[in-house]
Amino acid sequence: MLAARLHEYDETLSRPELVRLEEVPEPKIEEPDDVIVRVGGAGLCRTDLHIIEGIWRTKVNRPLPYILGHENAGWVHAVGEMVRTVRPGDAVIVHPLITDGVCPACRRGEDMHCTSSKFPGIDTDGGFAEFLRTKERSVLKLPPGLEPKDVAPYADAGLTAFRAARKAAASLRPGMAAVIIGFGGLGHIAAQVLRSLCAARIIVVDVSEAALQLASQLGFTDQVPGGPGAVEQVRRLTDGGADAVLDFVGERGTPEQGMGMLKKGGTYFVIGYGGVLQVPTIDLIVGEYSVVGNLVGNFTELRELMTLAGEGKVKLATRVYPLKEINQAMHDLAAGRLTGRGVLVP
Amino acid sequence: MLAARLHEYDETLSRPELVRLEEVPEPKIEEPDDVIVRVGGAGLCRTDLHIIEGIWRTKVNRPLPYILGHENAGWVHAVGEMVRTVRPGDAVIVHPLITDGVCPACRRGEDMHCTSSKFPGIDTDGGFAEFLRTKERSVLKLPPGLEPKDVAPYADAGLTAFRAARKAAASLRPGMAAVIIGFGGLGHIAAQVLRSLCAARIIVVDVSEAALQLASQLGFTDQVPGGPGAVEQVRRLTDGGADAVLDFVGERGTPEQGMGMLKKGGTYFVIGYGGVLQVPTIDLIVGEYSVVGNLVGNFTELRELMTLAGEGKVKLATRVYPLKEINQAMHDLAAGRLTGRGVLVP
Amino acid sequence: MLAARLHEYDETLSRPELVRLEEVPEPKIEEPDDVIVRVGGAGLCRTDLHIIEGIWRTKVNRPLPYILGHENAGWVHAVGEMVRTVRPGDAVIVHPLITDGVCPACRRGEDMHCTSSKFPGIDTDGGFAEFLRTKERSVLKLPPGLEPKDVAPYADAGLTAFRAARKAAASLRPGMAAVIIGFGGLGHIAAQVLRSLCAARIIVVDVSEAALQLASQLGFTDQVPGGPGAVEQVRRLTDGGADAVLDFVGERGTPEQGMGMLKKGGTYFVIGYGGVLQVPTIDLIVGEYSVVGNLVGNFTELRELMTLAGEGKVKLATRVYPLKEINQAMHDLAAGRLTGRGVLVP
Amino acid sequence: MLAARLHEYDETLSRPELVRLEEVPEPKIEEPDDVIVRVGGAGLCRTDLHIIEGIWRTKVNRPLPYILGHENAGWVHAVGEMVRTVRPGDAVIVHPLITDGVCPACRRGEDMHCTSSKFPGIDTDGGFAEFLRTKERSVLKLPPGLEPKDVAPYADAGLTAFRAARKAAASLRPGMAAVIIGFGGLGHIAAQVLRSLCAARIIVVDVSEAALQLASQLGFTDQVPGGPGAVEQVRRLTDGGADAVLDFVGERGTPEQGMGMLKKGGTYFVIGYGGVLQVPTIDLIVGEYSVVGNLVGNFTELRELMTLAGEGKVKLATRVYPLKEINQAMHDLAAGRLTGRGVLVP
Repeated sequence: MLAARLHEYDETLSRPELVRLEEVPEPKIEEPDDVIVRVGGAGLCRTDLHIIEGIWRTKVNRPLPYILGHENAGWVHAVGEMVRTVRPGDAVIVHPLITDGVCPACRRGEDMHCTSSKFPGIDTDGGFAEFLRTKERSVLKLPPGLEPKDVAPYADAGLTAFRAARKAAASLRPGMAAVIIGFGGLGHIAAQVLRSLCAARIIVVDVSEAALQLASQLGFTDQVPGGPGAVEQVRRLTDGGADAVLDFVGERGTPEQGMGMLKKGGTYFVIGYGGVLQVPTIDLIVGEYSVVGNLVGNFTELRELMTLAGEGKVKLATRVYPLKEINQAMHDLAAGRLTGRGVLVP
Repeated sequence: MLAARLHEYDETLSRPELVRLEEVPEPKIEEPDDVIVRVGGAGLCRTDLHIIEGIWRTKVNRPLPYILGHENAGWVHAVGEMVRTVRPGDAVIVHPLITDGVCPACRRGEDMHCTSSKFPGIDTDGGFAEFLRTKERSVLKLPPGLEPKDVAPYADAGLTAFRAARKAAASLRPGMAAVIIGFGGLGHIAAQVLRSLCAARIIVVDVSEAALQLASQLGFTDQVPGGPGAVEQVRRLTDGGADAVLDFVGERGTPEQGMGMLKKGGTYFVIGYGGVLQVPTIDLIVGEYSVVGNLVGNFTELRELMTLAGEGKVKLATRVYPLKEINQAMHDLAAGRLTGRGVLVP
Repeated sequence: MLAARLHEYDETLSRPELVRLEEVPEPKIEEPDDVIVRVGGAGLCRTDLHIIEGIWRTKVNRPLPYILGHENAGWVHAVGEMVRTVRPGDAVIVHPLITDGVCPACRRGEDMHCTSSKFPGIDTDGGFAEFLRTKERSVLKLPPGLEPKDVAPYADAGLTAFRAARKAAASLRPGMAAVIIGFGGLGHIAAQVLRSLCAARIIVVDVSEAALQLASQLGFTDQVPGGPGAVEQVRRLTDGGADAVLDFVGERGTPEQGMGMLKKGGTYFVIGYGGVLQVPTIDLIVGEYSVVGNLVGNFTELRELMTLAGEGKVKLATRVYPLKEINQAMHDLAAGRLTGRGVLVP
Repeated sequence: MLAARLHEYDETLSRPELVRLEEVPEPKIEEPDDVIVRVGGAGLCRTDLHIIEGIWRTKVNRPLPYILGHENAGWVHAVGEMVRTVRPGDAVIVHPLITDGVCPACRRGEDMHCTSSKFPGIDTDGGFAEFLRTKERSVLKLPPGLEPKDVAPYADAGLTAFRAARKAAASLRPGMAAVIIGFGGLGHIAAQVLRSLCAARIIVVDVSEAALQLASQLGFTDQVPGGPGAVEQVRRLTDGGADAVLDFVGERGTPEQGMGMLKKGGTYFVIGYGGVLQVPTIDLIVGEYSVVGNLVGNFTELRELMTLAGEGKVKLATRVYPLKEINQAMHDLAAGRLTGRGVLVP
């Protein structure tokens, strides 16, 4: 089958061919709970670029080459003998992790803390290909009316946004305010999830005019242009600070800005990454602030997100590329030419 | 009356007379809900030294001189006409804040986020004196058997420790592990509170042999000597990291160490202060860590702590000084010669 | 001033003059935190009829005559010397309870569990009059654009509905289902609150065609006609039962029906009253059901509800009567001729 | 192998041979995730008697004969090819349910709400035998130092008690009070769990002098003799009512008594069953009471309970019978001659 594999790191993303398109053997059923998915769409993520840059090398130990692509949806192609919940032909979205189902974290429902998980596209073969091997625990049937290529980015970007928004919504009551820093691939989903899950005011902060326009189209008209001045503006709009700040950038000054936007007792949610959070302990105490890291989401959260998507409460802005144009898509993303979330279709 | 007032900042704490003992007028009832407390004991806190050093100057705007002392207990001396819940002669502990009772934070029960609060000993006259003025909302009758001078440090040190421990206990289930960094004035209370509120394993980390001995006496035998090597030891003892780390030091490397002790999904509680927390956003995400600042506690938490104290579930190590020897006590604290919590008795 | 007072119980509500309109002295400021409100509107509630019927005699000990009316809004007319948060002329809604602010329940923010509360209109003079005496802690300034006579029913009916809906929303996740039994004065508010606070599916059950039409107008098109057959229909619609049932009737068979609609682990919220809940303990266990009683709401909840109302997320159907026509209004309510919530305007 | 099977219902439990001891074929591995456990101990439960009486016939559809016994522990005897977490020889306790691991409830961690579960000893062959077939998801390795025959009753009685106590502990803060009605097999575990998980006061109510003596031995000296007078005594002891009542009897008047012991806002937990809960809806509202049904517990809760048992925080009173004397044991239980929990050892 055709697949896009990473053969070499490239710190500056300057080579035209960041991943190589080539023929590789199709994955086969190996264990009774395996599921082979025919890929219908695979989302392109800034993390793919970070992997190529080599940033993840210290976190994950994976020999090259291998197939990238960790946001996958498609149709069930083949199933192992013990699989009962899906059948060939079912349209599915694929939870990004393969988890064991028996460790304490899995038993608590927090499968993304599984102690023996694999992460296709990160530490094993992913979905920039025609077929993908995963397990029964990782596939979720799509609600009627949803197409794999239209929902693939929910598998990771959407799920991460959902989890952060769900955590934030749990303490956001009417009259409180939440700030979304970065209205891009994740941020635009998080804003819609937040609007579905609570009645707090939502303020969008972004440096990009196009992003703010997308926000307006989706009904988020409370907006502040990004940059250092945003802190003061948010504080003024909210009469002393926001109760929650969800930072989908996480670098280039946003951690300091995000913390600066909080009111007493507020929480800063870290989703974007790259920079360093640096805060005097006395400030954490005087403001009684919390900082909450967010990592993907569990299977139940993926189900809930797909429910919202199926009900039309969350909509996704995507741009489709044929799998053959993956290098073009990656350069578009790196250069900021890609609005909405890129999806590769084999 | 006799009072100890701060007349001048001293960044190096080198002057023999850090605060001046002098005669000042007694406070009087001014509003119908005022309460005058005859001080029975006033706890000495590292924050008093930080105030003298001038660290709080940027956070609080208070002209000198004024009376320090923010951990107070005593007996009701006089009450305003609307006060119904206490009478002269009642033994009371004094919540460190004076709050309005009508702002949104007060109405939610989180009175220490009151938007028009005063903090005696920090921004208004405190309890290093014979009498203290506060309000009905800030006084709590002592359970039978407790003496003001024995409980005064609960008012702030104890309350802060209680709130942090209560927050941590809410997600600490049997089989999980919590680390207490710093088994001093606050830490030794937090450990006892934690033991009362949950069944998690408690590991004590301290650089001081005396502190570890106190821990053993109180029954906390799971111990690790403080310092950079503590991270590795805690990770080994806990099979991969602690679920909660409560840091009562907050400087000299403990923030990095504390974060390093966490397992995936763990929470670092900041109580001690002075240093800077510095953490790459990617680490917060990959570990899905949370960081939680803690600021004193609310009135309900003070009531609950005093219940534990009255039942003998929490015990306090104190050392009593006459108010006249306050400068001695302060130098003892600064020099690390004070074991247990210092209490000034007028 | 003109006031409507209850002079005699009437179990059958058959007398034309259920309450007597008469001149009584105006209330005066008596304590420094008193507030006199000029009534702009006072909601009429089924509880007023239950009081006249004598049902509350065993719960509340109040000599006749006195002024009914426990859902009040208006303008501040006079304030005691310690009142700081409102001034004469401010438009306010009145929390139904007068609470002391210092008991443990008040300090936790659950002021409606105050151990020394008064309930104007139930155990002391209420708002079916030109003026009402309450306290600073019980008045909440209206958001701009809201008129007292349009919001008065939020004070009790709305607040009760809000609290029940808020409790339910806390565990209603996307894909779950909630049933509202009784789309009347409280039910139509609860449905709107629920829609603001969570993304669960909302199914309306009512025996009245007019009520179901109101539901449709407000956008609640998932409907089931009330009666014993409703159980089966709800179970079919929800694929095995609802996660939450909010019962605003609480008599004439709805407790059994409501319990019968639950799926495993579901919760039945009791808001309407009159009947008896009767359930074998084995059923509670096999289904792991919960039953949750609901009593008015706290001040923070009233603030949150008024925020939703001010933002247009919750709308109220009312019918205004001059205070002089209160007996007519009461008979209309008793006879089922009153659609929307009745409001008396002096 | 030797097994005790139910061949005939007996409403009055009057036959000497309630279950028949006979030779049956050993269970074999049939699916890759099957686990065969050599039974080390199987707890005897009042539910076994209720099954024989035929009470469960309407809830569960199981043809006779079959092997009873739903509280099992032992050693792994054989495993299917996909089993990774246990090996033959491991000492294990067996979660009472066999669950699928892929339904929404399992994925949330609430496996006892699994929509395709089996319950050995209730609807399929149980553990009153030499061997038992279950699945990998249902076996939990014992902490060092625990013997199967000593812990078997934790599998169901203990787990049910743990879950109810854990739910109650979540809102029991220092200074609050919890009542345990019925200090028998479940109650004596719940009391110890509660003491480990919170600092609330625990009051034991029982009609049996022996039960109260056991309570004293375990350190629960706050006691009230059972019966109608208990309501008044509890109310007096708690200054107006308990915050939580855990009822392990659930019949013969305890539901009414339990509800009557609550303070405003309190919760009545139903664990024992047999009677009918009957409460006017107005009472649920005026007291804002909750009623919470409890059904076994999930796998994580079983792990947590075994942690407490391994640490010695919870101790179990048992009485061992050889499997051959099972009919004697059942008659002892029915006649109230069995103190502690009966355990059958093959």
